[in-house]
Amino acid sequence: MERKRIAIIGVGLIGGSLAIQLHEKKISSRLIGVESNKKHAQKALELELVDEIMSLDDAINNSDVIVLAIPVDKMVALLPEVLNKIDQQIIIDLGSAKAQLITALKDHPKRKRYVATHPMWGTEYSGPQAAVKGAFENKAVIICNADESDADALEWTKAMYRKIGMHLLEMDAADHDLHAAYVSHISHITSFALANTVLEKEKEDQAIFELASAGFESTVRLAKSNPAMWAPIFLQNRENVLDVLNEHIAQLLRFKESIEKKDEKNLQKLIEEANKIKKIIK
Amino acid sequence: MERKRIAIIGVGLIGGSLAIQLHEKKISSRLIGVESNKKHAQKALELELVDEIMSLDDAINNSDVIVLAIPVDKMVALLPEVLNKIDQQIIIDLGSAKAQLITALKDHPKRKRYVATHPMWGTEYSGPQAAVKGAFENKAVIICNADESDADALEWTKAMYRKIGMHLLEMDAADHDLHAAYVSHISHITSFALANTVLEKEKEDQAIFELASAGFESTVRLAKSNPAMWAPIFLQNRENVLDVLNEHIAQLLRFKESIEKKDEKNLQKLIEEANKIKKIIK
Repeated sequence: MERKRIAIIGVGLIGGSLAIQLHEKKISSRLIGVESNKKHAQKALELELVDEIMSLDDAINNSDVIVLAIPVDKMVALLPEVLNKIDQQIIIDLGSAKAQLITALKDHPKRKRYVATHPMWGTEYSGPQAAVKGAFENKAVIICNADESDADALEWTKAMYRKIGMHLLEMDAADHDLHAAYVSHISHITSFALANTVLEKEKEDQAIFELASAGFESTVRLAKSNPAMWAPIFLQNRENVLDVLNEHIAQLLRFKESIEKKDEKNLQKLIEEANKIKKIIK
Repeated sequence: MERKRIAIIGVGLIGGSLAIQLHEKKISSRLIGVESNKKHAQKALELELVDEIMSLDDAINNSDVIVLAIPVDKMVALLPEVLNKIDQQIIIDLGSAKAQLITALKDHPKRKRYVATHPMWGTEYSGPQAAVKGAFENKAVIICNADESDADALEWTKAMYRKIGMHLLEMDAADHDLHAAYVSHISHITSFALANTVLEKEKEDQAIFELASAGFESTVRLAKSNPAMWAPIFLQNRENVLDVLNEHIAQLLRFKESIEKKDEKNLQKLIEEANKIKKIIK
């Protein structure tokens, strides 16, 4: 594929990790960073994630492709502005919630230059120092409302993700947001709430944390995730997240009831049901 | 330390992994397995986890140390029976709930030959084929009500765990059960309930599982755990588990309320609170 000048708006965990891949897979001819946090901008240069840092306007004028990797509330504010300023560049976003954004852009005259994507990869860390080599590989990327994008923009975007080693899926924004609530957003809420449960109850007793086993670490790992990224996701995907959260609380209440009633048979049954996740997660 | 003839009752994930360590660290002179599941017994021999399989009575008569690694409901039934049959052997249990067991044994004439321990290690897999090399190392082991055990039994048990590479902690059974509810039992319930949430809602849509990211896998991993092991733990540690589960549901309801009210400020605050888990989990 033709190498292009690529600007990345937001050089944090996601943007920085993508930058490494664009460079290593020889997808970019030049990498421009746009970063409002000065310390992050400096760090991104130090780590050589991007070749240079520019203002938004300069970056738009000096690139063929513009990738937005910023929190979803900032995305809804900035993406229309970027579309206002471009000529024929390709615009790609990497956000974790899609319906509100795509609806907001529906009638924009430059809508077809934009490709809505969500690569299903992340870690609980944030900032340019959290960027890692080999990110995204062998993971799924969802492309939303593909038929609303120009063919050339769509094809280049797909080629980019394939070259990084991602598995492509297409769906509409509403389906994406529902599915993301199940396989990503709810996991973060349970992990945040579990951390708060333990922190709240164990204020008086530091000794407990010596006991934390690998199981606890695994379920609470996501609780380290960035508030500036996650609070806006939960609010933009509010209805789906509430729906899944209500179901999750209902499932917890089933465990509670079985334990209260000392109903071992039903408790075993609930756990056996849960074991069916083995079919899905190897 | 003096090598001893050691019998392991229950050669599954925990008993099998301990057997590997006892052999590798030259703690055992002979390893005897007692296993009611014939397939597991056969597998344990095939995998050379133990030198031989014996009946319970033969194992008791041919060993210096007897380690019980069976579900906590079976433990409460079998441990008094083992104590009835021993002479001066050391008896060690590895169960995840302690108060009920220790209370039941309080007045047993052989109580002092028994050392109550809980090594804080496990995986979501079960059976002898799940046994792994290097288990338990660098993890904590809790010894409960140490002053109720004979000095020689206690010292040998501590030496065994130190030689395996574990970090020793002592506490009474009630404190153990409270802490285990926080750092282990609740993680399993949230993970089981999360699996059931997703499985329930996604019956009609297999495609979603292509999207499962590392974050989802991490929070749902424990949902693969063995019902025969976990249902009895939740019931034996019922009051603590219910207490922590109620707190966890209350924390989830805070998230729900903030999302319902679109209260981004409070949502950020809840996540920032959860981030404090970074102090504890590196």
